[in-house]
Amino acid sequence: MTVEIISIGDELLIGQTINTNLTWMGEQLSLIGADVRYNTVVQDKHDDMLGAFKVAMGRVDVVLVTGGLGPTKDDITKQVLCDYFDTKLVKNEEVLKHVRSFFEMRKRPMLDVNIQQAEVPEKSTVLFNKFGTAPGMWLEEAGKVLVSMPGVPYEMKSIMSSSVLDRLKEIFNPEALYYKTIQTQGIGESYIAERIEAIETKMRSEGVALAYLPSPGGVRLRLSVKPTEELKQAISSYIVQIAALLPQYVFGYGDAKLTEVVGADLLSMQSTVSTVESCTGGAVAAALTSVAGSSSYYMGSIVSYSNEIKISQVGVKAQTIEDHGVVSKSVVEEMATNGRKKLGTDYCVALSGIAGPDGGSEENPVGTVWIGVAGPERVIAKKFLFEKDRQRNIRRSVLTALNLLRCELMKINIEKS
Amino acid sequence: MTVEIISIGDELLIGQTINTNLTWMGEQLSLIGADVRYNTVVQDKHDDMLGAFKVAMGRVDVVLVTGGLGPTKDDITKQVLCDYFDTKLVKNEEVLKHVRSFFEMRKRPMLDVNIQQAEVPEKSTVLFNKFGTAPGMWLEEAGKVLVSMPGVPYEMKSIMSSSVLDRLKEIFNPEALYYKTIQTQGIGESYIAERIEAIETKMRSEGVALAYLPSPGGVRLRLSVKPTEELKQAISSYIVQIAALLPQYVFGYGDAKLTEVVGADLLSMQSTVSTVESCTGGAVAAALTSVAGSSSYYMGSIVSYSNEIKISQVGVKAQTIEDHGVVSKSVVEEMATNGRKKLGTDYCVALSGIAGPDGGSEENPVGTVWIGVAGPERVIAKKFLFEKDRQRNIRRSVLTALNLLRCELMKINIEKS
Repeated sequence: MTVEIISIGDELLIGQTINTNLTWMGEQLSLIGADVRYNTVVQDKHDDMLGAFKVAMGRVDVVLVTGGLGPTKDDITKQVLCDYFDTKLVKNEEVLKHVRSFFEMRKRPMLDVNIQQAEVPEKSTVLFNKFGTAPGMWLEEAGKVLVSMPGVPYEMKSIMSSSVLDRLKEIFNPEALYYKTIQTQGIGESYIAERIEAIETKMRSEGVALAYLPSPGGVRLRLSVKPTEELKQAISSYIVQIAALLPQYVFGYGDAKLTEVVGADLLSMQSTVSTVESCTGGAVAAALTSVAGSSSYYMGSIVSYSNEIKISQVGVKAQTIEDHGVVSKSVVEEMATNGRKKLGTDYCVALSGIAGPDGGSEENPVGTVWIGVAGPERVIAKKFLFEKDRQRNIRRSVLTALNLLRCELMKINIEKS
Repeated sequence: MTVEIISIGDELLIGQTINTNLTWMGEQLSLIGADVRYNTVVQDKHDDMLGAFKVAMGRVDVVLVTGGLGPTKDDITKQVLCDYFDTKLVKNEEVLKHVRSFFEMRKRPMLDVNIQQAEVPEKSTVLFNKFGTAPGMWLEEAGKVLVSMPGVPYEMKSIMSSSVLDRLKEIFNPEALYYKTIQTQGIGESYIAERIEAIETKMRSEGVALAYLPSPGGVRLRLSVKPTEELKQAISSYIVQIAALLPQYVFGYGDAKLTEVVGADLLSMQSTVSTVESCTGGAVAAALTSVAGSSSYYMGSIVSYSNEIKISQVGVKAQTIEDHGVVSKSVVEEMATNGRKKLGTDYCVALSGIAGPDGGSEENPVGTVWIGVAGPERVIAKKFLFEKDRQRNIRRSVLTALNLLRCELMKINIEKS
C-alpha cells in the first residue's frame, strides 16, 4: 500500500506555516504499515492541483489530500476534484444538516458560503467532520483511493482516525509493524543512548528496530518488529529492561501524556494538588488543568509573579527573600509549604526562576529554576539550569515540575542534578 | 521565476522529522520574488528521486534539492543527478582539499567514504559548503537550473545565502511581491469575508491579492501586490479600510502577537494587570507571562479552580455562587473586582466556564465561558459559547480574554455576542 500526501496551501510554500500535518499523517500511516512514498505541496491554483492529482494517482495506491476546503474564494479543492473525477458538485443533505446544527449550536447566522460547504462531488462518499463544517470526501478510481480532508490539523486528525485509517487497512491490508513506545522526560537522546547502549546493540542484532523520537515533551523511544510472536515477546522484555535503567525519566508508555499520568497517580491516591508559581506564570497550573476531570485533584494556584504577591498572598517572609534571593531553595520551599496549607491540598508544587531573556546574574544565569514539592511527609527542592530561550525554559520547567511531582508521588529517588 | 523544492529523506515521510527546511527556503525565496510552486518530498530511492527530478524540471524554472548527500549508503542523490544529467562523477580537487582540512582541523581520521564526498557530477559547478564536507552542486539544462544541497539545515542555509539566492536573482531577475498582513482574533474567515466583501471585490479587480490564513491565534489577512508605487499605496489604504470594518477584531499587523500587543498597551499606559481564572486554569496568566518583560505590567494571579478557593482566596460570596451558579455574570464580576483589589492591579481579567468534556447543562452547555474585565472605571462581563473540545475551549478563552482586555484598554466597544 503506497501513499502520497498532497498538501494544499500557498502558506506552506512561502514559509508562513510549517507542514506539521505531514509529520502526523506520516507517522500514523507508517504505523499501519503503509509506505508513504511522496508528499507534494501545491499552491491553491486549479491547474497545479489538477496536475498534482494526476501525477499522484499515477504512482501510488492512495492519495491523501489536505487543505483548500474552507468557505472562502481561494479554497477550490472540491472544484478540482470534480474536474479530475469528471463529476459535479451536489448538495448533500446530511452535511447540510450538520452545518446547520453547527451554526445553531453556536447561535450564529449561517451564510451562503457555509451552505456551499454542504456541496460535495457526486461520486464521493462523505466522511463526517465532527469538529468543523467541511466534510472529508472519499473517492475511488480503478482500485485507487483519493481522500480529501480539511487542512485544519484537529479536523484532519479526527477524520483520519475515525474514517480513513481503518478503512485503508481493510482495503489494502498492509503488514503493520508491531511496536511499543516508551515515553521519557528530562533526559536527552544521547544520554539515553549511552545508558542503554548494550541493550540497544543486542536488540538490533535480534531484529528489533529502535527509533529515538525527540519531541517538545521529551524523547520517545519506539521499538518495532515484524509481527511474529517471538519478536513481540522480545519487545515486551526489552521495554522492561530499558525502563529499569531510567526509572526517574520513564513516565509512561504508548501515547501517555505526563499531565495525564500525574493526574491518574493523584486520582488513584485520592490526593489533591495546588501550585505556587513565579517564573512559569501559571503554566504548570494550565498543564494540570488541560486534563479532563482534573477538578477531582487540582484545587487552585497562586501565581506570585511580583515579590509583593509572594509576600501578601503566599506568605513568603520578606526576610527570606532578602537573605537568600527570590530564586533560591529557601524561597521555593516556603512557597510550596505555605501554598499547601493556604490552598488546602496534599501536595503543592512551587517554582521560582529566571525565564529570561533578562534578569540573569553570575550566580543565577538565565535558565536557572528552583522547583519544590511539598507533600504530607516532606518538602524537597531541586535546582535546574535550562536554556537561554524564554519559551523553552518555561516549557521545560513545567515538564520537570510535573515529573518531580510524579517521582514524589511514586516515591522514586531523584538523581543529583 | 517558478521554483520547486525537492526534499529527500524517509524521515520526513514517516513523521520522524518536520520539514523545516521547506519553511525557511519558502520564506527566503518568496522574499526575493520567486514563485515557489511545489515541494515534493521523496524517499532515498533511486527511481523515486529520478522521477521527481523529471517532473520538477518539466514544470518549473528552478529545482532546489536538499538531502541525500551524506557519506552513508542510503545517500544516493549524486548518482541520481548523474543519471538525470547523463554525466559521471569526477573527483574535485578543491572539494577534496576542503574535506581533508575539515578532518585535520577536527583531528579525526578521514575514511574512504569521506573521500567520495569530493566526487561531483562532471557537468556541475561546485558550491562551497563551509560548515560541512558535502558541497552544493549547481547544474543547468535548457535554461533551467537544478541545485543540490545537503539536508542539514545550517549547511543548506549557508549555501543558499552565500551562493544560491543572489545568483538566482541575477539570472531570473524575479519581481519581489510587496505585502502587508492584518491580524484578527475572535472572528471566523467566513464572517470576515462577508464584512469586507465589497472591498475584497474591488481590491481583487485592481490587482491586490488577498489570502485568508487561519491559525490557532486567529485569522491573518495577507494583501499582496506587484511592487509598483501605485499598488503599494493601494495596499496601505485597503489595510486601513479593512481595519475600520473590524475594529474589535483587528489587533495588529505584520507578525504582531496578541500577547505582545496587550503587553505593549499596558506598558504604554503604565497600567498593571492580574487574572483570576477558573476554567482556563492559569492559561491566561501563562499567556501574559510568555512575553519577555511582562513583569513590568503583570503582577500575579489566583487560579480558583475549586469553589472553596474562589471563596477563601478570591472572596467570592458563597451566596452569589448559590444564587447565580458558578458560571455566571455575577461570579466573574466578583472575581474580577475582588482580584483587582486583592492583587493590587489596575486591571483584572476573570474567567469562569465549562471547558468540558463534562459538566455542561442545558442552560450552560460545554463551551460556555463568562469573561470579565475590571478596570479603574468599570467592570464588564460577556458570555461566550465556544466548542466541545476542551483544549480548544481553553485556547479560545485565553485569546478572547486577551482581546477583551485590549478592547477595554483601548476603549473599543464590543459588539453584542
